[in-house]
Amino acid sequence: MRIVQKFGGTSVANIERIQAVAERVKAEVDAGHQVAVVVSAMSGVTNQLVEYCRAASPMHDAREYDVVVSTGEQVTSGLLAMVLQNLGVQARSWMGWQVPIHTDSVHSKSRIDSIETDELVSRLEKGQVAVIPGFQGLGADNRITTLGRGGSDTTAVALAAALNADRCDIYTDVEGVYTTDPRIVPSARKLDKITYEEMLEMASLGAKVLQTRSVELAMNHHVRLQVLSSFTTAPGTLVCDEDEIVEKEIVSGIAYSRDEAKVTLIGVADSPGIAASIFGSLADASINVDMIVQNVSEDGTTDMTFTVGRADVDRARGVVERAEAVTYSEVRVDSQVVKVSVIGVGMRSHVGVAKTMFEALAEKSINIQVISTSEIKVSVLISEEYTELALRSLHTAFGLDAE
Amino acid sequence: MRIVQKFGGTSVANIERIQAVAERVKAEVDAGHQVAVVVSAMSGVTNQLVEYCRAASPMHDAREYDVVVSTGEQVTSGLLAMVLQNLGVQARSWMGWQVPIHTDSVHSKSRIDSIETDELVSRLEKGQVAVIPGFQGLGADNRITTLGRGGSDTTAVALAAALNADRCDIYTDVEGVYTTDPRIVPSARKLDKITYEEMLEMASLGAKVLQTRSVELAMNHHVRLQVLSSFTTAPGTLVCDEDEIVEKEIVSGIAYSRDEAKVTLIGVADSPGIAASIFGSLADASINVDMIVQNVSEDGTTDMTFTVGRADVDRARGVVERAEAVTYSEVRVDSQVVKVSVIGVGMRSHVGVAKTMFEALAEKSINIQVISTSEIKVSVLISEEYTELALRSLHTAFGLDAE
Repeated sequence: MRIVQKFGGTSVANIERIQAVAERVKAEVDAGHQVAVVVSAMSGVTNQLVEYCRAASPMHDAREYDVVVSTGEQVTSGLLAMVLQNLGVQARSWMGWQVPIHTDSVHSKSRIDSIETDELVSRLEKGQVAVIPGFQGLGADNRITTLGRGGSDTTAVALAAALNADRCDIYTDVEGVYTTDPRIVPSARKLDKITYEEMLEMASLGAKVLQTRSVELAMNHHVRLQVLSSFTTAPGTLVCDEDEIVEKEIVSGIAYSRDEAKVTLIGVADSPGIAASIFGSLADASINVDMIVQNVSEDGTTDMTFTVGRADVDRARGVVERAEAVTYSEVRVDSQVVKVSVIGVGMRSHVGVAKTMFEALAEKSINIQVISTSEIKVSVLISEEYTELALRSLHTAFGLDAE
Repeated sequence: MRIVQKFGGTSVANIERIQAVAERVKAEVDAGHQVAVVVSAMSGVTNQLVEYCRAASPMHDAREYDVVVSTGEQVTSGLLAMVLQNLGVQARSWMGWQVPIHTDSVHSKSRIDSIETDELVSRLEKGQVAVIPGFQGLGADNRITTLGRGGSDTTAVALAAALNADRCDIYTDVEGVYTTDPRIVPSARKLDKITYEEMLEMASLGAKVLQTRSVELAMNHHVRLQVLSSFTTAPGTLVCDEDEIVEKEIVSGIAYSRDEAKVTLIGVADSPGIAASIFGSLADASINVDMIVQNVSEDGTTDMTFTVGRADVDRARGVVERAEAVTYSEVRVDSQVVKVSVIGVGMRSHVGVAKTMFEALAEKSINIQVISTSEIKVSVLISEEYTELALRSLHTAFGLDAE
């Protein structure tokens, strides 16, 4: 088998942890596998480097920023290669520019264009472990680029795709993907498998275990992704194509996001083009709008509600107030809301998920403020104070509790 | 004019210092000069990285060591480029592999083979400052190399030679090269100019202001080297060809080195090949021998004295004791010695320097244990307790005291 392993910042936080990581790599080598390893910077290092850049210049050149912040991963890759060699494992580090990992030249948030793998494959086939710093690449301008925060996951998945790896193991500080947040619902279960689509919804709805971007990339290239802990030996969660999962649950998990704020315009003049004017202005200001609801019109006016990220809510209010040709009697803003989502590919063939969800919430007298649905999820906006109650009730209602 | 400026670790120790460095660079740009800047790692950073490598593996791969330790200079170069841009100065960083600075593949102590300058020159001519991390290069194996400790001076001088720079300014924490150590002799004077040969003797005899290797390189390529302080605006010392110095002093400076130990073999059988056997064994053990004296033979035996670095003295004793075919009655070791040297190209045409030196020391009753001379210096080994007295007496005897 050919495996890509990726270790995050807490997994390589110091030399002792790097030694533990090396043992994990060695175990795969000893099992006869070909292994490429992607590493993050030691935890805290990237923040320090970013801090230096901010102190150096408030408006800094993204190309120089990349020169500075890419060093964290470079250090870890050299150290891990050393430790592996010390364990008798053949290994060498490959900088982004040495592989090369070609990216576009949008510095600090580059996208990977292609990865040259001929030399890497030939080394892997000879039993040499390739240690690759995540997050970095080589731009079309022959300068160092970085992929933006969480970029090491993206490096790992892109590398797994380019190498035709049988699996990409993402080592982190949790044991896998859970049916919901175990800190809130103690009966939450670790999932053995989850589809890319579900993982994507979980990630974009607040489960922080994987970056949305890396899951998309894995889905597009059918990279089998395993999420597992670098601190235990428990099996993790496999993110894979739907046809790999024999027994599909109707609902796989329940996600929530506190990063929500609700804006309501009362008494909006209900004329054609009014929604285009409001949401066009918000888009022009780069404010992401998530859920949108418009009430049935009465007396030529209507109420319009939408949600944005909490950090954007004041800006959103300003944009609406300045929007041309939008008349309304009042703007109300509420940041004390949470979005709770029920996710599962099984929904496609089973009706009644929304009904079960709404009933479970009604039974606890939780008022639903906004609803949005997609093919594989139902999301509701509720008052933040009901977060825990809602998660536990839904977890039970959909039969997800551990036995 | 085209200038290379080099700033050491204390000059770039934090963001404030880097900002002060940027002002120095800007001043040269504003004066209409073309400027390339070579920077060290922020002070302390390289030691931390070396410490990581030691902790990772006691016997580490020099190639991976270079990957790790080269990041210190990389960070400084990106930060300085940012700060320069913030001051309105066009600037960009160039990693060793981007220039490229081609070196051999002897990792961790590489030598520079050549520097490609076409692109750099074209940028310099357009007014862009090139910021280059010192100490690093690109090996023939397409991997990052480092030049060994003090390598940033070497980078600066090699770059100045390759760019045909009019001057290479080495910024440090002292104001220049002094006639002797001003901490010991308060009347020591800063020299305006000194020849390469004298500087080389000064450097190898204990004056720590410049690395021997970078002075050799400057001499071979006729790079005019200026040593000056990054903390004051005082003019520094120019290291240059002899013909640039109109008024040559007979003696330019007095150096001393405490890193000396004396080994004496008493009653050595005075047979042919005995010296070859002793010093061959020491060379095989990579022990550098400096001064050597052999007394006139009496009764077929002789006494032989030599000096080595203090760190090597125990090893040297062991090597001599195990040396084949060397018989002697006793080995004496003395680490309480210091080497004091009088240096000046003017000696070539003036006799009497040794006489003046020996008389000045005799006047203070300082016993000379060993003497060695070269074309432009006279060195004596004396008891360490007389260091200060000897330096002050010689400084006065050769008329070097400030008026």
